[in-house]
Amino acid sequence: MGALHAGHGSLIDRARAASASVAVSIFVNPIQFNQPDDYTRYPRPMDADLAFCAARGVDAVFAPPVEQMYPRPQTAYVEVGRVGDHLEGRFRPGHFRGVATVVLKLFQIVRPDRAWFGEKDAQQLAVIRRMVEDFNVPVEIVGVATVREPDGLALSSRNQHLNAQERAIAPLLYTALRASQQCIASGQTAASAVKRAALDVLAADPRMQVEYLEIADEAEMQPVEMIAGPVRVAAAVWLGRTRLIDNIRC
Amino acid sequence: MGALHAGHGSLIDRARAASASVAVSIFVNPIQFNQPDDYTRYPRPMDADLAFCAARGVDAVFAPPVEQMYPRPQTAYVEVGRVGDHLEGRFRPGHFRGVATVVLKLFQIVRPDRAWFGEKDAQQLAVIRRMVEDFNVPVEIVGVATVREPDGLALSSRNQHLNAQERAIAPLLYTALRASQQCIASGQTAASAVKRAALDVLAADPRMQVEYLEIADEAEMQPVEMIAGPVRVAAAVWLGRTRLIDNIRC
Repeated sequence: MGALHAGHGSLIDRARAASASVAVSIFVNPIQFNQPDDYTRYPRPMDADLAFCAARGVDAVFAPPVEQMYPRPQTAYVEVGRVGDHLEGRFRPGHFRGVATVVLKLFQIVRPDRAWFGEKDAQQLAVIRRMVEDFNVPVEIVGVATVREPDGLALSSRNQHLNAQERAIAPLLYTALRASQQCIASGQTAASAVKRAALDVLAADPRMQVEYLEIADEAEMQPVEMIAGPVRVAAAVWLGRTRLIDNIRC
Repeated sequence: MGALHAGHGSLIDRARAASASVAVSIFVNPIQFNQPDDYTRYPRPMDADLAFCAARGVDAVFAPPVEQMYPRPQTAYVEVGRVGDHLEGRFRPGHFRGVATVVLKLFQIVRPDRAWFGEKDAQQLAVIRRMVEDFNVPVEIVGVATVREPDGLALSSRNQHLNAQERAIAPLLYTALRASQQCIASGQTAASAVKRAALDVLAADPRMQVEYLEIADEAEMQPVEMIAGPVRVAAAVWLGRTRLIDNIRC
């Protein structure tokens, strides 16, 4: 969706190292926004993005106008199924339907051999992996680790909406996720106790409004009550008008 | 779906004349059947189908086992939107979702340049055309005219379920559709009057149980009340345990 930062840079670098040609799509996709305000506010620094891509050796940027991607109102959509039911899907109705639909369209147009996605959007990655498998789309999906600021805040195009005070407390989200990770590492298997460890950290600052904090299996993003294998602890918090998400593998 | 007849033969011949290589998919797709009985009864004469394809110069037949197409329960589906709402869609809930999903999968696996579909399933053709456009699938869809018996009955794998008496009256369906076509040709623009012309024909034999008879625009298969351009008159009738569909362009 553009507004490229070092997180996207890491995707490009991984693609560049593995591929003869690298294409980047830049498209702020209207059908995945469930809040018109979020769509309008989403940054679109196209000149900077193109320079960013050029500097990293990208061969092609696909940045279509909205009318080219949606020449008329979309009729067919990807129905993503249960992978999109919880976490983000619960609080952003229609979001993954819009994401999966535009990613399928982009794959059909660009026809890449491989595509790189950030683990920052872990549920999006799970939705896309499952769609590609279920529809036999001939694209290999590669997940890439989240890039963070030195204080732990996950890079996001939305971070620029934070004011100085909000920015100062934003790393608390990652601190909370690490607390849950440590809780699991120390042997705790009850999801409720692991969640409490993270929520206790977030409770330290009342400006952090938790929308959800959930523990889910990686493949289908279903909430678990007992932790018996690899899981993602994922959360969404509001800081003023800005919504931050992050997750950690445990 | 196999049980190949001269209607499929006409698709193959058209493909053969236009292409360097021709592949035929034969797969009775469980997720598009809304009645388990219909799925079980659907004929699967694989040896005859393979001979049929060989005789027509087909280069490859893709006939996967069900477990290969659906190695686990399908999660992601194609949501076809309003093109699938009426006619067949109204009486076969989930049918077009299953059709569109398997066709998308087949397109991703086989990756044809062009694909031929019969106009006998006019709404299916409209659903697939719209899905391909909406998802930017790089396949050109070609519709092929319905092949009929000398008495007008549209060829269908399900015709073999008709007993001799049912087979004798089955052509009444096409007679009815032609009556509506003549009604439109003579200047009638009210859909209700055009439908009545066809229903009067079907009423001649009480064994013909009409499920629907509808007049719809070709692109989106939405029922129309006034006829102002090209339309499809489409119907489904039950003859005993067998369901027949047919349509005519007007």
